[in-house]
Amino acid sequence: MSLSISSNSIYNELPNISLEEAQKQLINKLSPLPEETVPIIKALGRINSHDIYAEQNLPAYPQAARDGFAVHGTDKNGQNELVIDEWLKDGDMPSSPLNPGHTSYVLTGGPLPADTAAVIPRELVILKHNKVIINIEIKEGNYIRVAGEDFKKGELLAGAGTRLDAGLVSLLAAMGVTELQVYRKPRVAILSLGQHIVASHENPAPGQLRDSNGPLLASFIKNDGGELSAIESSCSNNSSAVRAQINRLLEQSDLLITTGGTYSGESQEAHTLYEKLGARSLFWEVNIQPGGHNGAAALGSKLLISLSGNPAACAVGYQLFAKPVLRGLQKLHPYSRRLKAVSMDSFSKKNSSRRFIRGHAEYTENGWEVSILPGQKPGMLRSLLNCNTLIDLPANSPGIQKGEKVEILLIND
Amino acid sequence: MSLSISSNSIYNELPNISLEEAQKQLINKLSPLPEETVPIIKALGRINSHDIYAEQNLPAYPQAARDGFAVHGTDKNGQNELVIDEWLKDGDMPSSPLNPGHTSYVLTGGPLPADTAAVIPRELVILKHNKVIINIEIKEGNYIRVAGEDFKKGELLAGAGTRLDAGLVSLLAAMGVTELQVYRKPRVAILSLGQHIVASHENPAPGQLRDSNGPLLASFIKNDGGELSAIESSCSNNSSAVRAQINRLLEQSDLLITTGGTYSGESQEAHTLYEKLGARSLFWEVNIQPGGHNGAAALGSKLLISLSGNPAACAVGYQLFAKPVLRGLQKLHPYSRRLKAVSMDSFSKKNSSRRFIRGHAEYTENGWEVSILPGQKPGMLRSLLNCNTLIDLPANSPGIQKGEKVEILLIND
Repeated sequence: MSLSISSNSIYNELPNISLEEAQKQLINKLSPLPEETVPIIKALGRINSHDIYAEQNLPAYPQAARDGFAVHGTDKNGQNELVIDEWLKDGDMPSSPLNPGHTSYVLTGGPLPADTAAVIPRELVILKHNKVIINIEIKEGNYIRVAGEDFKKGELLAGAGTRLDAGLVSLLAAMGVTELQVYRKPRVAILSLGQHIVASHENPAPGQLRDSNGPLLASFIKNDGGELSAIESSCSNNSSAVRAQINRLLEQSDLLITTGGTYSGESQEAHTLYEKLGARSLFWEVNIQPGGHNGAAALGSKLLISLSGNPAACAVGYQLFAKPVLRGLQKLHPYSRRLKAVSMDSFSKKNSSRRFIRGHAEYTENGWEVSILPGQKPGMLRSLLNCNTLIDLPANSPGIQKGEKVEILLIND
Repeated sequence: MSLSISSNSIYNELPNISLEEAQKQLINKLSPLPEETVPIIKALGRINSHDIYAEQNLPAYPQAARDGFAVHGTDKNGQNELVIDEWLKDGDMPSSPLNPGHTSYVLTGGPLPADTAAVIPRELVILKHNKVIINIEIKEGNYIRVAGEDFKKGELLAGAGTRLDAGLVSLLAAMGVTELQVYRKPRVAILSLGQHIVASHENPAPGQLRDSNGPLLASFIKNDGGELSAIESSCSNNSSAVRAQINRLLEQSDLLITTGGTYSGESQEAHTLYEKLGARSLFWEVNIQPGGHNGAAALGSKLLISLSGNPAACAVGYQLFAKPVLRGLQKLHPYSRRLKAVSMDSFSKKNSSRRFIRGHAEYTENGWEVSILPGQKPGMLRSLLNCNTLIDLPANSPGIQKGEKVEILLIND
């Protein structure tokens, strides 16, 4: 069993690199996701894969901007009594062009009789039998929405790589777009490598633990626009069986995240597994805490990321390595937003490595403020509750003084 | 057809009230949503309806915090050669308590032999045949996670009304919680009252328009944690048929939003419809632009909100009236976050009413900055693209100067 110690040497084969170098290794390996067609009503939050141009004017034809009376071009100055020819109702088309001295009642968003020069809102006229009396000045075009006033045919509505928000969904519906080409969601599989890990719905035997990293990662993946393709535990302590399991998971995924096996010398040690699969290591050991033992590899167009089984290290590793992959695959800016924030707490632990402290940041009248969450040991879950921020504490920092400005990454941005 | 004019009088029956009074009318009418049980893996983003307490310690038993060697209490000072009794593998339980002068190899997160006083990380010892040589000082409790170190049995994990984030889902999974009581999502039906409105997948005849408000509201509802129960157009210009349709929609919904019919004198005029249904008006006409003609009513425990058919007015009305209802039903703080922001644009339109201008806000090194989006006419869709903010411009304001501080509501917070 001295193998469990000597396997330590594999870490020396790859240099211990910086976070930014490690992230770049991953981003450089991203392959474009295939596209798929979704109905517009399911497109909210998806990323369109092609430029979208207006196929028509909006509005398509001149419309009344208010409920009121259509006025002929020759009547707009002077004439103050117009005969009402027609009361257009919702859905009606005008039966004839407008004649001088005549008017029709028109509805907001509805069509106008030909030769309408302006609309007068109904509350600005006096009704007298079948006539309207107008005492105000009328300007050509008043209360008329001209065709193409909002959007012109041929105009770019959304460039490729735009995340569809409510406004864009609404606009595309108005334009008659019924379906849309979007990037397929990144598919991510999660595999727990620990033999002592049982699914959270199972009752752990003595020495076993319930899986909390799977549900954590599944939640992160959903928040970041990914689709969970599988969530499994390693099927066996036989490493060739686990390799077969990984190959099966990769077939249905763009990214596989394994948890655990980043440090121990067991048969499921992640790095050895990845190597035996023929995956090319991108990095292994990054100079950060927690999560320094995380690593990544590429196998064809598929990526594998190995995260620590310690909950906080797993969470930090996801945010720093897996999330940029998910965002990059969707053609979004890969990295979390960085801001300066005032720390509301002190943190006394000295550390030679760069450290990512879990925090809760809020914008206040005084700018961004960040609280350091309790339970910062890598094996604890507590600092993940209410966590929306990582504080990026440089290597060899003496810690944080309360009131000090720190650099934060917003993870729910 | 002079009815279309005289119906104007109904607006005079209710006073024109302030936005805050109108919002309060709605919030005061909220009935609690029923609860439902969801599996923990589907609970992300849901709101728990009961306080949740820890049913066990976490960790449940003492664990090694690192891969390394267990040390007996009597060996922690002086003794520097320990005989290795056992190499625990992933998932193994120690076969016996630890004896003085002996050690066992233990794994991070794994169990410890009884009488273990500390763990020494494997990289800090020298291995010699079946012994480890220890040259460093050992403190009692080093590298041991004591039971309950992270969470203690009986501790409050999440109060009722907490939105489940990734960390809480993960913690509950670790605790063996497999399902959870949450508030049922608010069910919202959308009904377009315009006879000239066709669904966006249909081809509009001359005089008709595609529905863009339905997809807009459906997207907002999804973003705000609601569930769309129906999206329909009024079935008929026969008002009793439309009332039957509304009754049917209310049966399957907590909230019905109608669009259109807020100003015209047609048979589908929203206020008349609501009154004939026996709904009690909460307000009608609010002193804001756009969307001043919006209104609301209550029918039993169900709420009805009438929004303008103009896209921008519909969007503003949703954000100011419907969103607080959706949030309040979920026991969240009902109102959007208000902040001060520097306007990057000027806005010259004077207005006697309080005005909500669509904007895009971003946090920069200089604080919050807001751009005024183009296309601010109420009938236009353009200002809804990329809109994440409403600028709240007071009544009788002379407009906005570029660089001026304005009050904004963050609508995607």
